[in-house]
Amino acid sequence: MAAPIWQKNAQANIDQVIMDYMAGEDIQLDKKLILYDIQASKAHVRGLESIDVLDQQECEQLLAKLDQLSAEIHSGNFQLSEAFEDCHSAIECYLVEQLGELGKKIHTGRSRNDQVLVASRLYLKQSLMEARGLVENAINACINQAEATRSVAMPGYTHMQRAVPSTCGMWFASFAEAMIDNLMSLDAAINLIDANPLGTAAGYGVNLPLNRELTTKELEFARIQLNPIYVQNSRGKFELAALSALSQCLLDIRRFCWDLSLFTTQEFDFVELPEEMTTGSSIMPNKRNPDLIELMRASYAVVQSATIELQSILSLPSGYQRDLQLTKGPLIRAVTKSLQTLQLFPQVIEATRFKTDRLKDAIDTPMYATDFAVELSSQGMSFRTAYQQVVERYAELDDRSPEQSIQQRTSPGACADLKLDLLKERFERLCLLL
Amino acid sequence: MAAPIWQKNAQANIDQVIMDYMAGEDIQLDKKLILYDIQASKAHVRGLESIDVLDQQECEQLLAKLDQLSAEIHSGNFQLSEAFEDCHSAIECYLVEQLGELGKKIHTGRSRNDQVLVASRLYLKQSLMEARGLVENAINACINQAEATRSVAMPGYTHMQRAVPSTCGMWFASFAEAMIDNLMSLDAAINLIDANPLGTAAGYGVNLPLNRELTTKELEFARIQLNPIYVQNSRGKFELAALSALSQCLLDIRRFCWDLSLFTTQEFDFVELPEEMTTGSSIMPNKRNPDLIELMRASYAVVQSATIELQSILSLPSGYQRDLQLTKGPLIRAVTKSLQTLQLFPQVIEATRFKTDRLKDAIDTPMYATDFAVELSSQGMSFRTAYQQVVERYAELDDRSPEQSIQQRTSPGACADLKLDLLKERFERLCLLL
Amino acid sequence: MAAPIWQKNAQANIDQVIMDYMAGEDIQLDKKLILYDIQASKAHVRGLESIDVLDQQECEQLLAKLDQLSAEIHSGNFQLSEAFEDCHSAIECYLVEQLGELGKKIHTGRSRNDQVLVASRLYLKQSLMEARGLVENAINACINQAEATRSVAMPGYTHMQRAVPSTCGMWFASFAEAMIDNLMSLDAAINLIDANPLGTAAGYGVNLPLNRELTTKELEFARIQLNPIYVQNSRGKFELAALSALSQCLLDIRRFCWDLSLFTTQEFDFVELPEEMTTGSSIMPNKRNPDLIELMRASYAVVQSATIELQSILSLPSGYQRDLQLTKGPLIRAVTKSLQTLQLFPQVIEATRFKTDRLKDAIDTPMYATDFAVELSSQGMSFRTAYQQVVERYAELDDRSPEQSIQQRTSPGACADLKLDLLKERFERLCLLL
Amino acid sequence: MAAPIWQKNAQANIDQVIMDYMAGEDIQLDKKLILYDIQASKAHVRGLESIDVLDQQECEQLLAKLDQLSAEIHSGNFQLSEAFEDCHSAIECYLVEQLGELGKKIHTGRSRNDQVLVASRLYLKQSLMEARGLVENAINACINQAEATRSVAMPGYTHMQRAVPSTCGMWFASFAEAMIDNLMSLDAAINLIDANPLGTAAGYGVNLPLNRELTTKELEFARIQLNPIYVQNSRGKFELAALSALSQCLLDIRRFCWDLSLFTTQEFDFVELPEEMTTGSSIMPNKRNPDLIELMRASYAVVQSATIELQSILSLPSGYQRDLQLTKGPLIRAVTKSLQTLQLFPQVIEATRFKTDRLKDAIDTPMYATDFAVELSSQGMSFRTAYQQVVERYAELDDRSPEQSIQQRTSPGACADLKLDLLKERFERLCLLL
Repeated sequence: MAAPIWQKNAQANIDQVIMDYMAGEDIQLDKKLILYDIQASKAHVRGLESIDVLDQQECEQLLAKLDQLSAEIHSGNFQLSEAFEDCHSAIECYLVEQLGELGKKIHTGRSRNDQVLVASRLYLKQSLMEARGLVENAINACINQAEATRSVAMPGYTHMQRAVPSTCGMWFASFAEAMIDNLMSLDAAINLIDANPLGTAAGYGVNLPLNRELTTKELEFARIQLNPIYVQNSRGKFELAALSALSQCLLDIRRFCWDLSLFTTQEFDFVELPEEMTTGSSIMPNKRNPDLIELMRASYAVVQSATIELQSILSLPSGYQRDLQLTKGPLIRAVTKSLQTLQLFPQVIEATRFKTDRLKDAIDTPMYATDFAVELSSQGMSFRTAYQQVVERYAELDDRSPEQSIQQRTSPGACADLKLDLLKERFERLCLLL
Repeated sequence: MAAPIWQKNAQANIDQVIMDYMAGEDIQLDKKLILYDIQASKAHVRGLESIDVLDQQECEQLLAKLDQLSAEIHSGNFQLSEAFEDCHSAIECYLVEQLGELGKKIHTGRSRNDQVLVASRLYLKQSLMEARGLVENAINACINQAEATRSVAMPGYTHMQRAVPSTCGMWFASFAEAMIDNLMSLDAAINLIDANPLGTAAGYGVNLPLNRELTTKELEFARIQLNPIYVQNSRGKFELAALSALSQCLLDIRRFCWDLSLFTTQEFDFVELPEEMTTGSSIMPNKRNPDLIELMRASYAVVQSATIELQSILSLPSGYQRDLQLTKGPLIRAVTKSLQTLQLFPQVIEATRFKTDRLKDAIDTPMYATDFAVELSSQGMSFRTAYQQVVERYAELDDRSPEQSIQQRTSPGACADLKLDLLKERFERLCLLL
Repeated sequence: MAAPIWQKNAQANIDQVIMDYMAGEDIQLDKKLILYDIQASKAHVRGLESIDVLDQQECEQLLAKLDQLSAEIHSGNFQLSEAFEDCHSAIECYLVEQLGELGKKIHTGRSRNDQVLVASRLYLKQSLMEARGLVENAINACINQAEATRSVAMPGYTHMQRAVPSTCGMWFASFAEAMIDNLMSLDAAINLIDANPLGTAAGYGVNLPLNRELTTKELEFARIQLNPIYVQNSRGKFELAALSALSQCLLDIRRFCWDLSLFTTQEFDFVELPEEMTTGSSIMPNKRNPDLIELMRASYAVVQSATIELQSILSLPSGYQRDLQLTKGPLIRAVTKSLQTLQLFPQVIEATRFKTDRLKDAIDTPMYATDFAVELSSQGMSFRTAYQQVVERYAELDDRSPEQSIQQRTSPGACADLKLDLLKERFERLCLLL
Repeated sequence: MAAPIWQKNAQANIDQVIMDYMAGEDIQLDKKLILYDIQASKAHVRGLESIDVLDQQECEQLLAKLDQLSAEIHSGNFQLSEAFEDCHSAIECYLVEQLGELGKKIHTGRSRNDQVLVASRLYLKQSLMEARGLVENAINACINQAEATRSVAMPGYTHMQRAVPSTCGMWFASFAEAMIDNLMSLDAAINLIDANPLGTAAGYGVNLPLNRELTTKELEFARIQLNPIYVQNSRGKFELAALSALSQCLLDIRRFCWDLSLFTTQEFDFVELPEEMTTGSSIMPNKRNPDLIELMRASYAVVQSATIELQSILSLPSGYQRDLQLTKGPLIRAVTKSLQTLQLFPQVIEATRFKTDRLKDAIDTPMYATDFAVELSSQGMSFRTAYQQVVERYAELDDRSPEQSIQQRTSPGACADLKLDLLKERFERLCLLL
């Protein structure tokens, strides 16, 4: 690693092991952040020009070189490598190399503290917007499936025991409503973090009337995050809020995958997954395993653990502490895994084909017992007495078909009245709100 | 424990250890829920009347007895005890005792599954509303303190090392902004969970056209939670969202307490706490310890662990599983601790008195170095060169006073321009929105 | 709550809300600790006598009264109530009430800091010893079942997909070996914590030559925990080590319960649980649910969350901080739930009756594919080529019976060679070691 | 990524996104495991020869090529790349490429399930042994420092408030004892996991009399892990036990770093760190920050979160599930960070130089209050009365020096009687035991 730009004494014998330990995974992680850092650097340059710290020509030169660096990163000509301490140093070094003394002006009025905050804030906001789009896809897939299977009977379970008749439509619609709720939480997280930290320096502001309104507008943040101390203290806090919204999505996906994991056993045999979503075994020639479903189920753990890692790191007094460097790893790990999983989810929903005959066979007579009890009670008998009667006269229960049972399930939201229109309306409203 | 009402064979020799294990802490925890359960039971009764499962007289009798039970709980005449399986059974037993066969009608069209959901949903919503009010108090306290101390200089730290001059006003304002953000998150959690689960029975609806619109209006929920499967699957999920918002508040309080814990050491000696917020030692006559601050700091761990407990329990397929009973404990523990801590926070903010002389003494000359470098750079020298100059010509730095330094810190949000008006405006807007 | 004994100014207006917040659940939790506190107090008294701080008569009076208090607690005559700050104060108050000035001597040379440490250390050690005994019961139950079912074929699963034939004996033996390993971990935890913290006062020792060898012998600790600072810093650390060992047991129980939860579905239908281990539904007359299994499965989450709670609280500098008071709750919660679950586990193992016909029916022809491939490869064909052949000539596979297949599974530890003797030998060795 | 070797239909259109998702970080992580996999493959080959599945010549050829691969990896000639599915496939591919049909024999009687288990088991054992060595270094460093500073007075804190006089020697010795305890826990973890999983195939054994005694001896495991189902179920469980022992070390390091973080503030100013352990600021020319200490403190969070990740993934029925693939990432991340931190710890201990004058100045008169109270009580006054007297007659306390106070602190383990000999004896005994 190169000697850092803040190095006071280049001759100092800094132990390499210590240097490596302190660098950590920064270079690797900063690859996700450098483009956002450049974007924020451009806003900072424009802000400095607006308060006459840079003249117009200096501003344009810096902007041009920042664009050039951005292009080189996109084309692969510029590689963020261990030669740099982190992406922040890399950008400054590039500008100094290209523009000499002018490049050394970029850091006026800012600190790496607000620089990493603005870059990771932009990354986080962009990631949540992406998640939102993927969740919308999942909702559409669920609603389509719910409509297509609204009259396909399937057993409903509690305690993993057969309980009462249900439908595939109701099962798919449950995930539609879950994901619509998740849109609300993603939007709330976006609203919370949509605030510009740039212009607060090391956490106490600077003796310059920085134009924070301009940089806020340039970077399309909804508001200025005002207080420099709070800007520092929000590091980790905003990440936690974002991960909470993402983990909520993965929590529902975990349920979905658990269901499929059960439904694809030979014993249930309710669902067949397409070949590309299963894999073989290295030793057992007979196997087609639902690996994808299992990996998606396990992905919740990644976000859960990242959350703990952030929470644990944040037990600190106010102000920047180097501990916070370790927030980058779990953040990027969790966001990446979340987006990857959300991207696959709509495909999995679409690929889920139920075997209607198997489902129907699994609905046995005892599953109508509740229906009978409710019927008796709607005819005037008290429910608890009706319940006892059904228990005692179990054998006498006359049979009915799954089709009849699900058509009678008329409580709003249940099989016979899924209320998909209400769901769709709410979904559209949440999309318009944005 | 009494034999449960769903007991099929009263003679069955049910092992007491097993019964106790299954009952767990339910009776203790249900004391927090029973009044909400009664409230929801009243809505359910009105709903049953509206679809003619109960006639008007039955409805009124049941409502009267539910009100009577509520009054007896308030007065202490009725004690939820181990004689009941849980609060749900206790209510039904009471009604049967008071009204005979009519009491047995209350359970028509509902299950304990949606009953516990609606009761804990109401509890959660009420708790979040309370938290909101307490956070408002904290914001007001912070803003008042920020206004009163806006020109009191104090050292600003990074890495717990003296960095640059700051002010007490900026420190207090940082917690004001933090808590205003927390209002957003509390509101988002309230919006998410403000949905009526009642009327979905055991997770698959029932063969009755339950009037869910009426119960939703009666219970003042913002919307119906439509899908019965999702209603079940949202158990734990909504709790997690609520705890995420509460933990966000406690995260900021943890920072605040860490700062006070430092500031009240004899070495910093920046703050003196009032006597009622400190305690003595059982062995050391000389001690006055900031126990309260330490306990408030540690309270974050309670919510953090409750979160993990819920997340861990929820790794399940769809539908109710008894595992979910164990969500009650962590939920109530975390909510209770959060509200208690939030209740004390405004008092602690108000009681925080800084020792201005000690603060001023702690601002030493090297803390102006950044100011000098920025000044040089705003006069045309590049920042990196100015930085090097300041490093090399350290001794020559002419001195300035803390007062001067903080007046020059004019970047928006910093000491000289706290923007409390903007903060207050946003605060008011968030309160009006509700 | 009564004014604490360390109160300097009885007139001080201590706010009740603050007092309640600081007391927390202490009184409730201390009911688990008070007898250990008395035991340690007796050792402390003997220690003080041995260095002539107490004379023999004083010593005997104090011991007698401590025994008397212990007896009153056992008989229910003495109730630890909110009238006391905690169990430590309660004991001192009792002695003062009974013995006047002499009672006030008990606290010479100790602090509540080492007092709570020694009491919770004794509690923890006792709990781990109990856990050890319960784990032994579970091992015996598993070995008995494994012996009884060693030739009962059952399908072996990977990815919850049928893989290759297995036996019930192998399934039971897997939990026997798991629990034998857990004995090792429990013993390691016991060894770690088996150190006497008493005699270190508030964390820095005292100006008295306390007889720590005597108290160590009296309390049957294996060694003195020497360093007073470390004694304080081990609070939470030792608890974490103990919970790690307990959670390891619950992790295996979670697996066991997951298996039973699957095996008791109507679709698998491999196992029937006795009636006392299932419960009915409040709405569905047809249900018998495996609630006990589900609650045991979920109990892991209690220990997991307690672990996080301790870890989170412990992010502190050296020395006692009041944050540590909050370690009591999660500790006692986790230990209690662990012991309760471990107590039920042997019964559940014994009650697990497999339906041999259902198991046999579930072993279908493709499950022999691996056997064929291995056979081909043991005759000289390369395994990868044999694997391809079996894949391609699937239909031609001649059939074999489950019985044949499991008899051929001769790799050590597998169905045909369970090596229960080796397991039992190791089990006995671990019990002798103690 | 290349088509996997278990691919049945090479033409199948396997979606690339799914393939990438399933591959995850495997190639990256397997770089840590491949050499262990080769080592275990050699043992497996020898085992196959001993039961005549391979002849002697085949055995030798395979061993030679496995050695050759190992050498190529060491020299950098062989790179594990995305061209392979994982390290297991890479080894088999290499052998097939080098030896044709013979290479295809390597997988006889084993599965990737036991292959990954044995490789990660060897990795884990090796890592724990390394950790042991590093902890020994830390103990030696602590003992040396404790001996050198045994009579240097420093203030002892509780609640971060000055409490009673202490010494640097006692502070260093506390970490010596902590780390000696950690040796016990590392040894216990090593004992637990020191069991050979190889020879259990996919979790149910195979129809071959594999020579597991031979492979156990070859791989220097202390015992055979007998039961194939348990072998699978121990995945994650053993990792958790190992992380528990490692996290225990990092917990103590976190305390140490918290202390240094306080002691290096300008306000405490007790310790100065050498230049190579501090860094500058990008904006503040005046700063020397203790970044290294802060990063070491935060490293606990990495192990803590890895623990949660494993615990969360493991909520599964028996047998291999693909979820388990995600255990590799957190395991390797946590082990790597633990070893890196442990490696630096001895250096940091050695580099910690206390400023004796500053320490002495910080010991003020009220810190002797406890001494006085204890003295009065050892002269016959009851402690509680002595305590009250000292409170009331505070001003009259005659002064004493820090030196006097620490010499009087004679309770075993305290400043005047550190018992370093006992510590050293125990340390040596633990090293001999190995």
